[in-house]
Amino acid sequence: MPVPSDPWFNAHHSPFGAFASLTLGTPGSRGGLGLGLTKPADCPIYVGYEVEPNRFEALPFFDMDMRDESERYSSEQPGHERTHARLKHADRASIARELDSVLDVWTYGDFRFEILSASAQSQDPALMSRSAKRETFRPSLSLRLTLNNRESAAPRRVFFGTSHHDPYSNFRRIDEPGLVGFGQGTITGIAAREGTMTVGMSFGLERCLDIPIPENQHFLLGPHAVLIGEVPAGEVGEFDIAIGFWQAGQITTGIPASYLYTTVFEGIDDVLHEALSSADKRLDAARTTLAQRAEAPLSETQKLLQDHAIRSYVGASQMLVRPDHSLLWVMNEGEYRMMNTFDLAVDHLWFEMENLPWAVRDTLQLFADRYSYEDGVRAPGSDEILPGGISFTHDMGVGNQFSRPGYSSYELAGLDDCFSYMTMEQLVNWVCCAGVYAQSGDLAWIRSHKSTLDKCLTSLENRDHPDPAQRNGIMGFDAARCQGGAEITTYDSLDVSLGQSRNNVYLGVKSWAAYLLLEKLNTEVFGDDASAERAKTQADRAAATIVASVRPDGTIPAVLFEGVESVIIPLIEGLVFPMQTGLMPLVEARYPDLLAALKRHFDTVIHDGRCKFPSGGWKLSSTSINSWCSKIFLCQHVAAKLWGHQDPQADEIHWQWVSAGENGYWAFSDQILDGVAGGSRYYPRGVTNVLWG
Amino acid sequence: MPVPSDPWFNAHHSPFGAFASLTLGTPGSRGGLGLGLTKPADCPIYVGYEVEPNRFEALPFFDMDMRDESERYSSEQPGHERTHARLKHADRASIARELDSVLDVWTYGDFRFEILSASAQSQDPALMSRSAKRETFRPSLSLRLTLNNRESAAPRRVFFGTSHHDPYSNFRRIDEPGLVGFGQGTITGIAAREGTMTVGMSFGLERCLDIPIPENQHFLLGPHAVLIGEVPAGEVGEFDIAIGFWQAGQITTGIPASYLYTTVFEGIDDVLHEALSSADKRLDAARTTLAQRAEAPLSETQKLLQDHAIRSYVGASQMLVRPDHSLLWVMNEGEYRMMNTFDLAVDHLWFEMENLPWAVRDTLQLFADRYSYEDGVRAPGSDEILPGGISFTHDMGVGNQFSRPGYSSYELAGLDDCFSYMTMEQLVNWVCCAGVYAQSGDLAWIRSHKSTLDKCLTSLENRDHPDPAQRNGIMGFDAARCQGGAEITTYDSLDVSLGQSRNNVYLGVKSWAAYLLLEKLNTEVFGDDASAERAKTQADRAAATIVASVRPDGTIPAVLFEGVESVIIPLIEGLVFPMQTGLMPLVEARYPDLLAALKRHFDTVIHDGRCKFPSGGWKLSSTSINSWCSKIFLCQHVAAKLWGHQDPQADEIHWQWVSAGENGYWAFSDQILDGVAGGSRYYPRGVTNVLWG
Repeated sequence: MPVPSDPWFNAHHSPFGAFASLTLGTPGSRGGLGLGLTKPADCPIYVGYEVEPNRFEALPFFDMDMRDESERYSSEQPGHERTHARLKHADRASIARELDSVLDVWTYGDFRFEILSASAQSQDPALMSRSAKRETFRPSLSLRLTLNNRESAAPRRVFFGTSHHDPYSNFRRIDEPGLVGFGQGTITGIAAREGTMTVGMSFGLERCLDIPIPENQHFLLGPHAVLIGEVPAGEVGEFDIAIGFWQAGQITTGIPASYLYTTVFEGIDDVLHEALSSADKRLDAARTTLAQRAEAPLSETQKLLQDHAIRSYVGASQMLVRPDHSLLWVMNEGEYRMMNTFDLAVDHLWFEMENLPWAVRDTLQLFADRYSYEDGVRAPGSDEILPGGISFTHDMGVGNQFSRPGYSSYELAGLDDCFSYMTMEQLVNWVCCAGVYAQSGDLAWIRSHKSTLDKCLTSLENRDHPDPAQRNGIMGFDAARCQGGAEITTYDSLDVSLGQSRNNVYLGVKSWAAYLLLEKLNTEVFGDDASAERAKTQADRAAATIVASVRPDGTIPAVLFEGVESVIIPLIEGLVFPMQTGLMPLVEARYPDLLAALKRHFDTVIHDGRCKFPSGGWKLSSTSINSWCSKIFLCQHVAAKLWGHQDPQADEIHWQWVSAGENGYWAFSDQILDGVAGGSRYYPRGVTNVLWG
Repeated sequence: MPVPSDPWFNAHHSPFGAFASLTLGTPGSRGGLGLGLTKPADCPIYVGYEVEPNRFEALPFFDMDMRDESERYSSEQPGHERTHARLKHADRASIARELDSVLDVWTYGDFRFEILSASAQSQDPALMSRSAKRETFRPSLSLRLTLNNRESAAPRRVFFGTSHHDPYSNFRRIDEPGLVGFGQGTITGIAAREGTMTVGMSFGLERCLDIPIPENQHFLLGPHAVLIGEVPAGEVGEFDIAIGFWQAGQITTGIPASYLYTTVFEGIDDVLHEALSSADKRLDAARTTLAQRAEAPLSETQKLLQDHAIRSYVGASQMLVRPDHSLLWVMNEGEYRMMNTFDLAVDHLWFEMENLPWAVRDTLQLFADRYSYEDGVRAPGSDEILPGGISFTHDMGVGNQFSRPGYSSYELAGLDDCFSYMTMEQLVNWVCCAGVYAQSGDLAWIRSHKSTLDKCLTSLENRDHPDPAQRNGIMGFDAARCQGGAEITTYDSLDVSLGQSRNNVYLGVKSWAAYLLLEKLNTEVFGDDASAERAKTQADRAAATIVASVRPDGTIPAVLFEGVESVIIPLIEGLVFPMQTGLMPLVEARYPDLLAALKRHFDTVIHDGRCKFPSGGWKLSSTSINSWCSKIFLCQHVAAKLWGHQDPQADEIHWQWVSAGENGYWAFSDQILDGVAGGSRYYPRGVTNVLWG
């Protein structure tokens, strides 16, 4: 996709499953190589070419006023000159960028810079051959620098490099058979084929580009290094560079595990060799895909939103292996790095069902095995603990540290806002994910979880009301684990309109969807009519309760029975589950009033401006300026597919939110506070927009 | 040693051979746990106690205005209050510090905080049993918190903790059998015995201290964590805490190697257990040593200078093991992290001869095996390459990356200042170190290097002049590797007075010492009278040349024959070698004129102020404001021992240089520019002062 006006945003460029990224696109030293970081590495990236003999222009991915590091050594001497006589940033207006989710192409004058990263399409790794694992999980990126030097009478150079990005080690030289380059200790490598390029390592970029004495190319003190290629006069030169990432040994605690790639590669040099040898074929295919992307039936902006979101998803993906060789899939939660956060997993669901359904299965399985728990419920204001049932933790740990069984890293007792328990939310999420996963056809797995699903049904009912006679389909009781606090939803940082779980209609519609999926599974897979009927009863109750809550203006309050006036868009979020599981004919037949009420609610709040920012961007709650892109995308899909609602102006605003100005530093961000990326940054959740088709 | 007035300087607290440090002493978040860093970790250290119920005072090792990290999560909400109603920094004037090289004791009110680190006394690790290796190289520190609660009617708490210090991981909880604590991923652990303390982990220190709901102690998101102990009313409470460091797997490239400790411990929990179980005995011994330190026959300031320097040496020490199980010793060069830098090794020599002579042997051996080279020489201004001979590289690599054989990370061709070759300096250093190492009695090793020493003699002669008839004992030719540039000395960042090697009298006296040592070895060990005679001839020539250069004012110019007017203190540096090897009777008998000339030179420049700062601190060169503590200490030793020169006022100034104000942040620093620590900071070289006795 040609990036229309402002291409200066950071995007992830990542292998699949390596939780690693070359983040690039924001001007200045604000991108670079990161391994499992909470943010861009804030390093310079040096990429450019010799415009005329000994005069260089570079893409603006570094600060021009960086300190010359030699000052640290020769403290008294007047210091070596730091001129930029021979080097400048290229004119930004002359630089073009084109990208999809796998290829990022920068073009400037005679020069082209391509970055090829991984897609996240993958067969079940548990069934993969070693060579398929090497291909799928190779922790590398492929770069190509191309310089058209046909019109020049002199040879000209191109370069690519960066600076130190690790506190524990210095750069090494890579001079292995077949390879030339440099790397940060043992954790990254940047290499070309031996003989194609040379290395410059020094205290600053200009020094790196000017090492006339060949012996001095082996200087190791400089924190900056580049690979340099020379194109003869009259020729077009192409230089392939591989970037490898490598974290050996135990990566996680709690559940000790290592990167899968360490079991199928000998080391980072093996990775670099393989990446260089396969680059041609893969780059050709990626170029074709990029060209074909223009034909996809979405607007340019929608395609950019999709591709950008996918990049941040891939950058957060982590494929591990336990000492017993069993696989361990982790999606990391962007800047927060929580692991397999369940309320993100339910949003990643659509992307994963399309590209890696085994990840849905593995995540649900680990939640069932290690991160489920049983607890009771309490009525608001009551100390009495009544029967509750199973639920699942908010996450499985944080920053490579798995939490203890049955507990998340996040949830605290005694609260009623951010960091409280999400017991009902995650219970609904397990059911909804399992119901959608059944669409993969893996009914054997579904059947093996009949008892879990039965427990879920009971728990859902009890969290409505432990007394069947008093149930209304909507959550009315908080988890005993809250110890008197109140549960929250995934919208943990919003106000009560979306933050509170009890009597929340966002969660109510999602619960209704969960009941429908339980009814469907019990009918179609288990033949358990009694359970199906129980689920249907609850769905009916939920629908009736919600329909009965419509106010004269056609809206439904965000929270029922509690005097909350806010109106919210995510009331319609739960419709995505019947939509994606073939249940809409049933819904239309059985719940026409609910469907009509939700449509009327949506139409009202979106048109009267309560759920729009003045810019035209969607505002999830009328009483909060905190709006979440991932959820907007999801609700856009519901409104577009069910009711034909299109809002291209909003797409433009949402693209600004994740790409323009300072927001663009964070690659994809989810929480946008009145236009500012204020939380959930560097974040994988935006892939809900794959629902757009 | 009670620290007299200003105890607020960072000091290393380190295991031996783990290249790791708890750096502590500068107020603010400016210390913390570091593994192989170029500087303090800039983290908070939380240590303090409950003064009265729910009111805490802490040593001032953190910033009071730190951001509450929960803001990242709940971006819209007004945010959790950040009051410091219950916590404040203790009054600095009421805090006392007492330290030697192993124990650091902070006392405040009813509270005492002791940090026990490792000494660097060790037998040859190649001959050690596994249990001796576990004891010597255990990568841990032992802390003790003591609270006298006898006068209190209420229980009171003590705490110790820190914040995240690693970009790649979060804190984990340590809940292993027998241990309670927390750690940064797999790389550090802070633990007490199970049951003695609890863990608080949260978004800020006050939150960590206030977790009333026990279930909430397992919250994992906070970047701050403390161990908390409670002392019952009427009792004295003691809490032992162990800090462990752990870097698994391959640490270095070029020569791949791992930490020795990973071969004798199962993992960091094993380290923590062992540290806790042995703390009592070791702390008792350290307290006795600290008390006895008062009796050492040096001034308080001199003892502080020694102890502080030793700490920075131990923090830079690194004991590795190759895949073939052979040991690999590395001393890291402080903030520059160059490995086994030879011109530092020659200064560490005195400390190592006393405490770990095997390190001298191993370093010399690796220089001979991998980091020696042969090259020619060139006369100034000439392109002709004449016979030269063997020398040794400046270093063996940088930041865990060993450089290629025969080359340092540092030396560049074509220069005549910082980063040029140090061919003559390192050649002299190998000879001097070997000559001193012979004092250990390991003559078998010396004998095995007869041919190396022969090559050194030839190379020394040729670097004086390839034509024997034109030799004057002083270096006159630069290394061919300079490619027309000029060699420099270890004083790489000083002006020409000390920076230039050719005709430099600092290096001239050191070369004279090297010839004396070659004469001695050839006479006493090898019985090679011819070589002894050649060495003596060169020593005689050097002495004659230097004596002939005395000017009417009694000084000797720093550089001969080249019109340099500067005068320097390190002219007398080379005397240390005959002094420490029993050669002074010979020197007095054979070179009385040289000795007299050096004394007169020294007396003149030190008394006429040319080599003193107005403060009274020593100024190595009359024409440079860059003065190096390590070298001052060495020259102080020469002047004190030979000529009875004492300068207690200078000691005070030098102590200020390495401890006061902003300088104190860097622990021991070597290069002091007019009172400011301007280079070679966080540096091991100060241990030359062990020569003081």
